[in-house]
Amino acid sequence: MRTIRVTVWNEYIHEKKDTKVAEIYPKGMHTVIAEFLREEGFEVRTATLEEKDHGLTEEVLNNTDVLIWWGHLAHEKVSDEVVDRVYRRVLEGMGLIVLHSAHYSKIFKRLMGTTCSLKWREAGEKERIWVVAPWHPIAKGLGDYFELEHEEMYGEPFDIPPPDELVFISWFKGGEVFRSGCCFYRGMGKIFYFRPGHETYPTYYDKNVQRVIINAVRWAAPVERPKPRFGRVEPLEKLS
Amino acid sequence: MRTIRVTVWNEYIHEKKDTKVAEIYPKGMHTVIAEFLREEGFEVRTATLEEKDHGLTEEVLNNTDVLIWWGHLAHEKVSDEVVDRVYRRVLEGMGLIVLHSAHYSKIFKRLMGTTCSLKWREAGEKERIWVVAPWHPIAKGLGDYFELEHEEMYGEPFDIPPPDELVFISWFKGGEVFRSGCCFYRGMGKIFYFRPGHETYPTYYDKNVQRVIINAVRWAAPVERPKPRFGRVEPLEKLS
Amino acid sequence: MRTIRVTVWNEYIHEKKDTKVAEIYPKGMHTVIAEFLREEGFEVRTATLEEKDHGLTEEVLNNTDVLIWWGHLAHEKVSDEVVDRVYRRVLEGMGLIVLHSAHYSKIFKRLMGTTCSLKWREAGEKERIWVVAPWHPIAKGLGDYFELEHEEMYGEPFDIPPPDELVFISWFKGGEVFRSGCCFYRGMGKIFYFRPGHETYPTYYDKNVQRVIINAVRWAAPVERPKPRFGRVEPLEKLS
Amino acid sequence: MRTIRVTVWNEYIHEKKDTKVAEIYPKGMHTVIAEFLREEGFEVRTATLEEKDHGLTEEVLNNTDVLIWWGHLAHEKVSDEVVDRVYRRVLEGMGLIVLHSAHYSKIFKRLMGTTCSLKWREAGEKERIWVVAPWHPIAKGLGDYFELEHEEMYGEPFDIPPPDELVFISWFKGGEVFRSGCCFYRGMGKIFYFRPGHETYPTYYDKNVQRVIINAVRWAAPVERPKPRFGRVEPLEKLS
Repeated sequence: MRTIRVTVWNEYIHEKKDTKVAEIYPKGMHTVIAEFLREEGFEVRTATLEEKDHGLTEEVLNNTDVLIWWGHLAHEKVSDEVVDRVYRRVLEGMGLIVLHSAHYSKIFKRLMGTTCSLKWREAGEKERIWVVAPWHPIAKGLGDYFELEHEEMYGEPFDIPPPDELVFISWFKGGEVFRSGCCFYRGMGKIFYFRPGHETYPTYYDKNVQRVIINAVRWAAPVERPKPRFGRVEPLEKLS
Repeated sequence: MRTIRVTVWNEYIHEKKDTKVAEIYPKGMHTVIAEFLREEGFEVRTATLEEKDHGLTEEVLNNTDVLIWWGHLAHEKVSDEVVDRVYRRVLEGMGLIVLHSAHYSKIFKRLMGTTCSLKWREAGEKERIWVVAPWHPIAKGLGDYFELEHEEMYGEPFDIPPPDELVFISWFKGGEVFRSGCCFYRGMGKIFYFRPGHETYPTYYDKNVQRVIINAVRWAAPVERPKPRFGRVEPLEKLS
Repeated sequence: MRTIRVTVWNEYIHEKKDTKVAEIYPKGMHTVIAEFLREEGFEVRTATLEEKDHGLTEEVLNNTDVLIWWGHLAHEKVSDEVVDRVYRRVLEGMGLIVLHSAHYSKIFKRLMGTTCSLKWREAGEKERIWVVAPWHPIAKGLGDYFELEHEEMYGEPFDIPPPDELVFISWFKGGEVFRSGCCFYRGMGKIFYFRPGHETYPTYYDKNVQRVIINAVRWAAPVERPKPRFGRVEPLEKLS
Repeated sequence: MRTIRVTVWNEYIHEKKDTKVAEIYPKGMHTVIAEFLREEGFEVRTATLEEKDHGLTEEVLNNTDVLIWWGHLAHEKVSDEVVDRVYRRVLEGMGLIVLHSAHYSKIFKRLMGTTCSLKWREAGEKERIWVVAPWHPIAKGLGDYFELEHEEMYGEPFDIPPPDELVFISWFKGGEVFRSGCCFYRGMGKIFYFRPGHETYPTYYDKNVQRVIINAVRWAAPVERPKPRFGRVEPLEKLS
């Protein structure tokens, strides 16, 4: 099987302007994510908002099997042209993993067709993530649940289409629940939304979080098939 | 139970410029659809592209429980402002029934997040529509299948998200199949895509087609609930 | 529309042998459930384990649109013949509402095809039930969540097939989550599993719980259609 | 990755008593299926009805990752004990691929919880199998459709639960459609029902059919995780 090629995209702003975040992720969240993916044997590159084309040229995307997306402060600064490009590639089969506050990214909202709104609270409370799809490849190696001692809370309702597969449900100490691992199929592409990853906590160093993202990369990699044919066609059977 | 208020929207172009269509639908498809819905006891109005705001003002939409949409030639002439308005109302709970070539309407593509492309052929061939969700309210009163002697063919793949409920599958004489009755849930709204209804055939006079649309109106009517609350919230439980 | 005919089935054992339960439900849980359903205008009868055929004769079931089931101590005492009878009726279109500990009833396990096992704890802790399908008829009239001050805990994993529609997710103070409102379609029938209702708490007097059960009765009522035809058939089209 | 261990089970009766079938499958269908799976690199054994325990001892099943099942004439001769054993293994994570007339096998009906009835006709007519889940690993390498020149017809309604994923829809020359590739998740196990494979046609020599079964084996292989914990549990959080 061919090595899976991953591009990790990060808006990379918090890490440069907030000391607390910089201490946790001195080279940016994308660098930490890229590292544990490389150790797993994937071919990984990174891309950020400030690069030309946000680092997501046609050439980069055409050589990406799975794109990981983290954004928060600058969703509106992502150009529509790049969003269109990513959108087309997802429908062609490129996997997309949407992390945490990227629920509000242009690309996720466009693929979902809903507002992707939710409840939230920054109180560093405990999150316990329960597996509700015990058969799912993204749950490989996980027990019934895993915990993050401090995370931002996201709560229901989460304005997304009913997930095609619901893998995780989060419990928060403050009283809310959240569908925190959601799979969607769009075109030939697979999309996984994974909730954890607030910039002020060391979430992407957590071994269970890393395992989920690794599993998701394998799950989201494209299935090779000829492109579907759309448009006007002749009959396959004789019409009388 | 309150009377369901339906608005039937039609771009209303084919009927005015094509003699063959005008013979079948002299006052437009919307008028025929509105009539059989009125006979069922619904409160029905119509709206067309040429009206101010395409007949879909805030006031009209705020007083619409279920919107029916037929379009083909002029999808791009529907203003983005009106599309935004319809979009918001669907997420707030207004039902939406999308007919035939409106698979390519701006509003359907926006709610689906995919291209909504498909195969097609205009050969007036036979379509046989099979019920695959025997428990579904939209299948009420239907046998295992019903037939349309002459219809345009639509064939798979149909580039939509996996339907939340698949009600009908069509068989076409020329050799194709199509997921021709598809339910989607988005926000608080219900969406039903129903395939038949090419302008050159008298499809909307067919009693089974009428029954499906009547059933779909009842199914798609809004469920009354307080609006969901999104955004920043205080903890419901004490955090330690 | 015809009045919906409901049969409320209860094993009716706890209430007769446990003082604490008898104080809450002196005439049995089925009587309390039957009362609020009657007030809503449904035609309601009750049936219990000790009756001949457990009160579920062919005649009773043939005149039942929706069957509600509560059991806990005596699942194994329900005769296989009666289970077969209920099973056939569900596939023919009779709605089935399965309450709380009836997740382990013979009829639910048979319809699910899984063990229906779960985690549990009797500690009278708080349950907060969140709506995750804001468009769903069973959520009619409910806000984003409702609370039960004291309930038994049920926790994930819950060994059921992925629900065809997931309406509610419960948060429990002790740290668990649970898919507590689950819809399933089987044959022509609709099945709703609803978690709350431990016998030692006055759960079925709660107005939100009552509203859910009322909504579920309307949702689960049969859709009238001819019976599907199975078996050997002649071709509908000429074979060459 | 560990080699996937497949057991191909066949009732193996038609091939021994029907000359026409024997000519196509002189050593039984299981032998042909086993061969193309071995060529793909899987570790494959076969098992048949006439063997002790039908060849499905605890030891065999404990060393099987994916079980393939073909049966038709002798569903009732499969012992309940063996069915129980297979059932438990599927819920523990063993994949199950159910072929053609095995829709009526005890194990499939038990896992589905429905009758699994359908329409059928033996007329050797053309089947065209359309891909409706272009993103699905089971569709890997397939075009928009593939054809089988002669097959038995199976038609809707097919009395199964709504598939968790619908991969294929068949078109039949005689006028019917069928959901012919259906995925189900039960417990930790994955189940794939695949329609083609009537004993009087050389279907399992077809390269596309072989490809689908190979893809399905990979998809159905177990995901390694600790067993879920069910039953009474202590609180994870302090209860006040």
